[in-house]
Amino acid sequence: MTYCIAASIDEGLILVSDSRTNAGIDNVSTHGKMHAFDTHNDRKIVLLCAGNLATTQAVLEQLHRDKIKGAGINFNTVECLSEAAEYLGHISVEKQNQHKNTEGQSAFNASATFILAGQIGNEPHGAYMVYAEGNYITTSANTTFLQIGESKYGKPILDRFLKLDTSIDEAARCCLVSMDSTIRSNASVGPPVEMLIYRTNSFSLADYYCFDDDNDYMLQLRRSWENKLREAIGALPPLEPSFTKRMRVNL
Amino acid sequence: MTYCIAASIDEGLILVSDSRTNAGIDNVSTHGKMHAFDTHNDRKIVLLCAGNLATTQAVLEQLHRDKIKGAGINFNTVECLSEAAEYLGHISVEKQNQHKNTEGQSAFNASATFILAGQIGNEPHGAYMVYAEGNYITTSANTTFLQIGESKYGKPILDRFLKLDTSIDEAARCCLVSMDSTIRSNASVGPPVEMLIYRTNSFSLADYYCFDDDNDYMLQLRRSWENKLREAIGALPPLEPSFTKRMRVNL
Repeated sequence: MTYCIAASIDEGLILVSDSRTNAGIDNVSTHGKMHAFDTHNDRKIVLLCAGNLATTQAVLEQLHRDKIKGAGINFNTVECLSEAAEYLGHISVEKQNQHKNTEGQSAFNASATFILAGQIGNEPHGAYMVYAEGNYITTSANTTFLQIGESKYGKPILDRFLKLDTSIDEAARCCLVSMDSTIRSNASVGPPVEMLIYRTNSFSLADYYCFDDDNDYMLQLRRSWENKLREAIGALPPLEPSFTKRMRVNL
Repeated sequence: MTYCIAASIDEGLILVSDSRTNAGIDNVSTHGKMHAFDTHNDRKIVLLCAGNLATTQAVLEQLHRDKIKGAGINFNTVECLSEAAEYLGHISVEKQNQHKNTEGQSAFNASATFILAGQIGNEPHGAYMVYAEGNYITTSANTTFLQIGESKYGKPILDRFLKLDTSIDEAARCCLVSMDSTIRSNASVGPPVEMLIYRTNSFSLADYYCFDDDNDYMLQLRRSWENKLREAIGALPPLEPSFTKRMRVNL
């Protein structure tokens, strides 16, 4: 499986992805899922990928080839992120369909999901989730983040904390905690963890991190988080005897 | 859906359950999922239920009828919790099979999962998860809790915090946070929240709570938790510029 997060807040974008892929529990390997495109200087486009690895690689290759060829629609010619998302959805469905209906492979699943994030020209930064069906959604003031893959373990901390006006540094650490919790609770999500902090209008990918399993910073983050959680549980209001009710014993 | 937790630690058991059931998104109702049996004084047996409501109700009824009838195996005659779990598994499979193969209902799912917890005679307290197939598992020193239903949202906090020697009051608050996080992140899990704290060798169900949506204690708990999480994120070690790496832009 996979876990990727894209948060889109006032100050910019935070993208975080794990690197574990598996085709069955005994066939685990490591592939980065965050991919940056070498585009014109007026834009930055980054993809996060989940799902069938052959499909996501075929899609990335096709996007690259379209861009090299230059003619027709490609990441250098799209005028806004939603157009990029629509184009990506089209390519994705095409690649999935090439392998979907092979005879005698009923358990085979070619589907893939993407997050496309970045900034184009004078448009604001943004993030889009492109479903396997090729349709797509973006964030809103109420829900500032998108997730693909094993999204449930890491959702509560994002739900409770991430707002439009959260500072980008705190939002980044919140996303790292969300990733660390998922890695700890689900063996199909694993390091290295990649993170890109994109500050709006910077058109720079310089604030990029790649944390291995034994990375000092990640160990510190995990230790600090676990200590603070213990404190937080210790500080929760105590249950009073007066709160108890009579339990119905009717069976 | 459903979310139920059973933690089995040195000091005793904590059982927590939500009360939302739904047959489709437009058919939501409220049913308690924690059920205590009126058994002989040498034992306490409590069930938590997830899955098809008709199945779980049929199973509870059958367990009750077997106990009233008195002959043969029932919750008054089983000599230990694993025997009780095996008996429950048998009844569960029987009830599921009665409805499983009805013609023309391919989307219909009669399956149900249970947690059976309590204490019998001189045996230690314990908790068992009974799968839809009727087989069952219990907790261990490494994994002190069982979950049924929407288990992923609330798992990280239990994974990070619950140990055999955690105090039962802190463990109870930790389980409530796990439930509150799940309710906040998933609309198919909802109040009232029931909680039973069973202290080992007490053979008492007096430490029972039922929290409605607008319960003052739950509101305090949520507020305290969110404040402390904000503090915890603020206290995480900062990302230093020296941690950044060069991002590969190869597409």
